[in-house]
Amino acid sequence: MMTDCIFCKIIAGDIPCAKVYEDDDTLAFLDIAPNNKGHTLVVSKKHYETILDTPDDMLCRIISAVKKVAAAVKKGTGCGGFNVTQNNYRIAGQLVPHIHFHIIPRIEGDEFKFWPQGKYEEGEMEKWRAKIAKELE
Amino acid sequence: MMTDCIFCKIIAGDIPCAKVYEDDDTLAFLDIAPNNKGHTLVVSKKHYETILDTPDDMLCRIISAVKKVAAAVKKGTGCGGFNVTQNNYRIAGQLVPHIHFHIIPRIEGDEFKFWPQGKYEEGEMEKWRAKIAKELE
Repeated sequence: MMTDCIFCKIIAGDIPCAKVYEDDDTLAFLDIAPNNKGHTLVVSKKHYETILDTPDDMLCRIISAVKKVAAAVKKGTGCGGFNVTQNNYRIAGQLVPHIHFHIIPRIEGDEFKFWPQGKYEEGEMEKWRAKIAKELE
Repeated sequence: MMTDCIFCKIIAGDIPCAKVYEDDDTLAFLDIAPNNKGHTLVVSKKHYETILDTPDDMLCRIISAVKKVAAAVKKGTGCGGFNVTQNNYRIAGQLVPHIHFHIIPRIEGDEFKFWPQGKYEEGEMEKWRAKIAKELE
């Protein structure tokens, strides 16, 4: 437990939450600032900062919980679809540095804007591909 | 393989892609309409539509690949952080009905807007919590 982490405090029961699910490794509760009503967070009970810091076996257990909770969010809210989102580092909008997955129910007319899609100039795609693939050799 | 699925065609080698990684169960390649340069998709080689249709053991293998590829995206692009996003059903922006995770590198000044955050009226949060939790009993 990180003493200055709001999610660790929620997990410890020191701060209340609107809990929807819990198992040995994960806790799921409503986001207090929902994109749409029923917006749910699935957090690891153990403190890890980002996906890169989280062991593979724990990621497995978290994503299984995400699937389970997402089915309940879909049925419980009656939404037609949902986004699963996980932000890493402050620049990507990670407000709490404790790994968590967002399940965001989507409804007709919510008018969320998707992030702008760009394009690659001729030859540019290969340059970026190579930079990333090199790190995986 | 779904004969009308563009990702199945990419996996079969019938359509080219800018590949960055491949293992027995997953393939990772650049999104041709990137939010930022280096925007990468990790797809299951086997065809499943959404997270709800994907077996847990396959989800484990996909999320492990996402973590591995995300580390490479971060190093390869030099980004300060990244979003992992997975959309389910058309209303949530799922353009290809074959499960895939987006890894979106974020850079200072990209000015992506986050989806609007809302709030619950007094007592409303409990109503939504109960709807979802009921599906998990």
